[in-house]
Amino acid sequence: MVRTHTHEISTTGQGDAHDVTGAVGRAVRESGIQAGIVTVFVVGSTASVTTIEFESGAIHDLNAVFEDLAPRDGEYQHHLRWGDDNGSSHVRAALLGPSVTIPFRDRELMLGQWQQIAVLEFDTRPRRREVVIQIIGE
Amino acid sequence: MVRTHTHEISTTGQGDAHDVTGAVGRAVRESGIQAGIVTVFVVGSTASVTTIEFESGAIHDLNAVFEDLAPRDGEYQHHLRWGDDNGSSHVRAALLGPSVTIPFRDRELMLGQWQQIAVLEFDTRPRRREVVIQIIGE
Amino acid sequence: MVRTHTHEISTTGQGDAHDVTGAVGRAVRESGIQAGIVTVFVVGSTASVTTIEFESGAIHDLNAVFEDLAPRDGEYQHHLRWGDDNGSSHVRAALLGPSVTIPFRDRELMLGQWQQIAVLEFDTRPRRREVVIQIIGE
Repeated sequence: MVRTHTHEISTTGQGDAHDVTGAVGRAVRESGIQAGIVTVFVVGSTASVTTIEFESGAIHDLNAVFEDLAPRDGEYQHHLRWGDDNGSSHVRAALLGPSVTIPFRDRELMLGQWQQIAVLEFDTRPRRREVVIQIIGE
Repeated sequence: MVRTHTHEISTTGQGDAHDVTGAVGRAVRESGIQAGIVTVFVVGSTASVTTIEFESGAIHDLNAVFEDLAPRDGEYQHHLRWGDDNGSSHVRAALLGPSVTIPFRDRELMLGQWQQIAVLEFDTRPRRREVVIQIIGE
Repeated sequence: MVRTHTHEISTTGQGDAHDVTGAVGRAVRESGIQAGIVTVFVVGSTASVTTIEFESGAIHDLNAVFEDLAPRDGEYQHHLRWGDDNGSSHVRAALLGPSVTIPFRDRELMLGQWQQIAVLEFDTRPRRREVVIQIIGE
């Protein structure tokens, strides 16, 4: 069985993070599927999904490492193409990736107690984001 | 239902990138599967798959960050084992990972307009790469 | 069909790595499922799973890049919350991600010859880790 949900969020721009664990857990419980995987996928090339202990310190620390790796005000060849200012966003999103896949059993996500599912905005402006929550199992 | 395809590409060595979105979308449409996930997986430990806006500037920028992180001419303990020169390739590939998982619905990949599926070569020499495109759904 | 296994490992702390390819391959062969994907997922927010050539040099090189990126003795806002000392662990684990998804066919993982599945411990102390091996296919 396959169930596909979309979940919309509004972000404030680079560094904003949203905890979608609750929405993903609900989608799994309401699917009627007992065991399987849920893929959480963010549409677009300037945002990412990962798992993290969702507290402001850890989110800050992760963004600080990305600022070191791919500084917002760095020089990017991507800027030359469209006059964009979001080369840092593309690099960060490609590095972290657009999705995570989480197994579940007995209709419960097999996450750790301090492990949440986070959508990270890397674009330099506020965005509406479509998050796909797709459940496959039996 | 499960459908497994393999797709071969030839790369020119470190930094080369291939857009496989067309091949993946075709495999999904021809599978007859309406909704599910497609896993795009590159065989080997010195290449990766991610999503990115596939234009030469963004690809250059991503490779530049990897050159900072794990310089091709850096010192690697991996070199001591086999006399290899591709320690940077192994580190980059492990960081970025071998696969992405993309949901689809109505036989269409749920990608953004500027979001393509890229295979990145990190090895220091040209390679033949086997890309697995595996579709699961109903 | 869905089969869910859990595999426990004991780690020695930050930088420790475990090759779980054998356990994953056995779970696939014993599942009776011919083709599909296996998701290897580590429970918790301070460990990761990736593929790498599993030899001590490459593992060392990957850890060295993480030490550059997110030094163990760096300053982290996460430390301010609980008095923890593992801000570097959270950043590294979020970057590398909690899971990999590997396709299989004819009951064999479609890995390269030098490509193994590695669980990486990033926490600053020894941990018991639960690794979920979940197989979906037909």
